[in-house]
Amino acid sequence: MKVVFNEAQKRHYPKNFLVSGAQKPNPEVPERADRLLAAALDSGLEQVTPPDYGLSAVSAVHTPEYLDFLEHVHARWQRIEGASEEVVPNVHPNYRDGRYPHSVVGQAGYHMADTACPISGETWQAALWSAHAATHAAWLVLEGDPAAYALSRPPGHHAYADIAGGFCFLNNSGVAAAKLRRRHARVAIIDVDVHHGNGTQGMFYRRDDVLTVSIHADPVRFYPFFWGHADERGEGPGLGYNFNLPVPRGTADDDYMPILDRALQRVQAFAPQAIVVALGLDAYEGDPLQGLSISTPGFARIGERLAKLGLPSVIVQEGGYLCDELGLNLSSFLDGFTNAHKI
Amino acid sequence: MKVVFNEAQKRHYPKNFLVSGAQKPNPEVPERADRLLAAALDSGLEQVTPPDYGLSAVSAVHTPEYLDFLEHVHARWQRIEGASEEVVPNVHPNYRDGRYPHSVVGQAGYHMADTACPISGETWQAALWSAHAATHAAWLVLEGDPAAYALSRPPGHHAYADIAGGFCFLNNSGVAAAKLRRRHARVAIIDVDVHHGNGTQGMFYRRDDVLTVSIHADPVRFYPFFWGHADERGEGPGLGYNFNLPVPRGTADDDYMPILDRALQRVQAFAPQAIVVALGLDAYEGDPLQGLSISTPGFARIGERLAKLGLPSVIVQEGGYLCDELGLNLSSFLDGFTNAHKI
Repeated sequence: MKVVFNEAQKRHYPKNFLVSGAQKPNPEVPERADRLLAAALDSGLEQVTPPDYGLSAVSAVHTPEYLDFLEHVHARWQRIEGASEEVVPNVHPNYRDGRYPHSVVGQAGYHMADTACPISGETWQAALWSAHAATHAAWLVLEGDPAAYALSRPPGHHAYADIAGGFCFLNNSGVAAAKLRRRHARVAIIDVDVHHGNGTQGMFYRRDDVLTVSIHADPVRFYPFFWGHADERGEGPGLGYNFNLPVPRGTADDDYMPILDRALQRVQAFAPQAIVVALGLDAYEGDPLQGLSISTPGFARIGERLAKLGLPSVIVQEGGYLCDELGLNLSSFLDGFTNAHKI
Repeated sequence: MKVVFNEAQKRHYPKNFLVSGAQKPNPEVPERADRLLAAALDSGLEQVTPPDYGLSAVSAVHTPEYLDFLEHVHARWQRIEGASEEVVPNVHPNYRDGRYPHSVVGQAGYHMADTACPISGETWQAALWSAHAATHAAWLVLEGDPAAYALSRPPGHHAYADIAGGFCFLNNSGVAAAKLRRRHARVAIIDVDVHHGNGTQGMFYRRDDVLTVSIHADPVRFYPFFWGHADERGEGPGLGYNFNLPVPRGTADDDYMPILDRALQRVQAFAPQAIVVALGLDAYEGDPLQGLSISTPGFARIGERLAKLGLPSVIVQEGGYLCDELGLNLSSFLDGFTNAHKI
């Protein structure tokens, strides 16, 4: 299997974010990529660099005004007297019935749902290369690789078609799914990040060609708070094509696996020709975010189950934050996956 | 005329707010009330203290869950490890289709649209007394006073039925209008604050019994950014009962008065039995927010025009920030109003 990554993805280096009104160090740091890359290579993956897909892949799932915003907002922000170095929103359209604002401050609040996605002068290129990695992994799978791993960082699954949030700017898993859809009629995204993949859900909520499934810590008291409940099932043509499995905080391996099996039954009933795995490693029992309690061997069991679907698989990195076992957890997943993957 | 005010309103003292990503001193300070009260007394108004209306007046326009949130959020917030002293939101439901969260962090983002309305342990009582002042001014007018001035601070017109924003928590002008509605079939709110009264608009957007009219700096590049455009005309039964008159930044007296006259023609066509004046003094040419360029004598001309409607009038204080002429501008308005008011 190949690991797809470009060093440019590391140029995004957010320093802080506002948590409960207080500035905290931002855990979505470039060192995550170093750790994950080393682990992927340890597991025998071969490193490749994605080509530059320009905007062709990301524009399949993001609005043009949002992409324009992401590319240019930092330069515009710097022209505001007394503005912060990083773009951080401070006024939001809690009702989305209002007008699209011309003002960069208004646009920041429109396109950024929270303070966990500060935008520096390096963010756009890093996010775009992160999406290129996912696009290229999907391309490899379309070209015949049974599976590929996109080391997408910054992550993507909280990004909507036109909103950044939760460390995410471009929805890499969504981009990969859209790429797979160019050849396949049905694609499923299976999100095992500790957080609900609200951006991915929102992006495909009215579509029946991309099944979105997410297992995550119950959002009732966990980010993203407003979405991720079991009764969010899709809308219009997409009704029945979104499947959320919120689980209690602290859920460990033995309780988790039967829930994953339920998710995979739903995927099998959909009969996709390919899948995207939105691979968060932050469900780990030692992850700083402390949502679920998956063990290191637990990730191998997750990988094994996903592999047993026997489908072409694009594995896209989502969350998972610095702790001693971050790399081990990826290796555990990849080893479990590759040992069981037969297509 | 009476000025209605309670010293408890001064206990809310927000220290900072986030502007373009940077912490700035919050201009909505208690000293505003001192300056405005002195000016009202200078203009010959008689000071009265409102009684405690409990929740009976504010619950006419605010949701119970929002009122519960405002009352208890600070104590809940303090139980979060490492949380800031003041409640400041950091994650927002940019789409309002999500679930109402249990988490206090989620609720803060749900009920607070921006970082300009930090909630301290004193905010609830101060905001409630500010609303009591507006309620009592309406009561005085219902009891036969031709007009009354509510020195409502903190201000209110950016607060929706369930959202705080822009220094506002409880919508004092909306509360006064609802109080007047208990006796009158039709009430108009005329908002001359430099900012669009988006909360007031939102609160009455689907109603035809309260006409909402706002003259304000064009929101295309000015707070509240997302609302305040001319084509926002109301919805459902309220269609045609919301009238926005955005004006260019820097508009001065002579260009402003014909626009005010258009607003008042619309009010006359509605034939209300009473009006609420949402009196921002931040349209002043020397106001720190620098939106419009009304002169001190200009406020007398505005007051005179409003008075000439010849209707029972509840004047509710909205914005207007510390500058040497803040008190003078109120006196100018009140003098212009009282000299012309004959009912």
